[in-house]
Amino acid sequence: MRIDIITCVPDLLHSFFSHSILKRAQQAGHAEIVVHDLRQYSTNKHRTIDDYAFGGGAGMVMQVEPIARCIRDLQSRHEYDEVIYLTPDGERLNQGIVNQLSLKGNLIMLCGHYKGVDQRVRDLFVTRELSIGDYVLSGGELGAAVLVDSIVRLIPGVLNDETSALTDSFQDNLLAPPVYSRPADFEGSKVPDILLSGHEAKIEDWRYEQALIRTRTRRPDLLD
Amino acid sequence: MRIDIITCVPDLLHSFFSHSILKRAQQAGHAEIVVHDLRQYSTNKHRTIDDYAFGGGAGMVMQVEPIARCIRDLQSRHEYDEVIYLTPDGERLNQGIVNQLSLKGNLIMLCGHYKGVDQRVRDLFVTRELSIGDYVLSGGELGAAVLVDSIVRLIPGVLNDETSALTDSFQDNLLAPPVYSRPADFEGSKVPDILLSGHEAKIEDWRYEQALIRTRTRRPDLLD
Repeated sequence: MRIDIITCVPDLLHSFFSHSILKRAQQAGHAEIVVHDLRQYSTNKHRTIDDYAFGGGAGMVMQVEPIARCIRDLQSRHEYDEVIYLTPDGERLNQGIVNQLSLKGNLIMLCGHYKGVDQRVRDLFVTRELSIGDYVLSGGELGAAVLVDSIVRLIPGVLNDETSALTDSFQDNLLAPPVYSRPADFEGSKVPDILLSGHEAKIEDWRYEQALIRTRTRRPDLLD
Repeated sequence: MRIDIITCVPDLLHSFFSHSILKRAQQAGHAEIVVHDLRQYSTNKHRTIDDYAFGGGAGMVMQVEPIARCIRDLQSRHEYDEVIYLTPDGERLNQGIVNQLSLKGNLIMLCGHYKGVDQRVRDLFVTRELSIGDYVLSGGELGAAVLVDSIVRLIPGVLNDETSALTDSFQDNLLAPPVYSRPADFEGSKVPDILLSGHEAKIEDWRYEQALIRTRTRRPDLLD
């Protein structure tokens, strides 16, 4: 899988893609993640990529021309399954969409900044609009980082233990059950006896029951 | 506002907090963001902070003792309004919660990793559990970055133009209307005439109508 990220603040993403599982995924050849500086696609001498909004009002708008140039340049060199725009008014990301995207080949992710991109970018180039949640961030870069992380960890071989992702919250519409590790007694707070019993089947039953209780209490909507 | 972030991969967060608005917010004294390496609070020689789960199964659990030590150390030096744990089974973050948190004084944010933290950390130390969305990430670090970014941009003086945040999606339960910038004609795709008309009141009406249409089409739930 190849992911190309288009942003006007490429440095913001640097540490994220050079650590932890994303670093390992790239080193092992599971994913190629390339960050593109949109300013390289500006044709004016100050390398600006934004301008005032037509009609007035606060906030700058990312212009259509540099983005068009960048996307066309990438598309002339690779085939892409989707051109994704990260925006708070997009379709809300969930684990089902993540699972689906993890099966794709190549993706372009476009990060908005300021008041967002010129509407014509969305009309002419973007194939899918996604939001990571109902809140506003200073740019789409964190959205892209979230999307890349959620997708790449599902690529077979990326997680150390492949079964690990299957027991995550949401994969079976249940939240994960409580987990405990050593010490068995922390200042009087003890690990539930069942987890120390060694009865594998009973432990599985307990975990399932706890996951169900937690889901019913916290997120009954997931059980509908 | 002071935000202390507890993580076992501190380097992952470095570039987010040293660029863009978070850098400016810190330089201008609006927010102090301190990242703590949880491994510094481990007492064993390998600086481990995780161990196998009681009861077996895939994935490691972050142990209660190093986290307890770190939180108590911070609490002995500062007063905190909340100890927030970023977890996919927490309350789902939205702009209302962000607005509320932006008015607080000091916050601790605890990032889970692997299979999450020992349940006793949640029972004994955490005051609020938040999820940035219904998907699983490789750790809570991106969740913390999202939360910090969403909060800090609301602190007065952080955004260049203070009115800018007020016209964001969600602040009035409406998605933002389309925006356009130069050129007025991009390969035949034109900016709507109304935005070039100079009639301020009519432009405002058009934007409100467009915001309403977009919200009705994409997110009718926000209008309920």
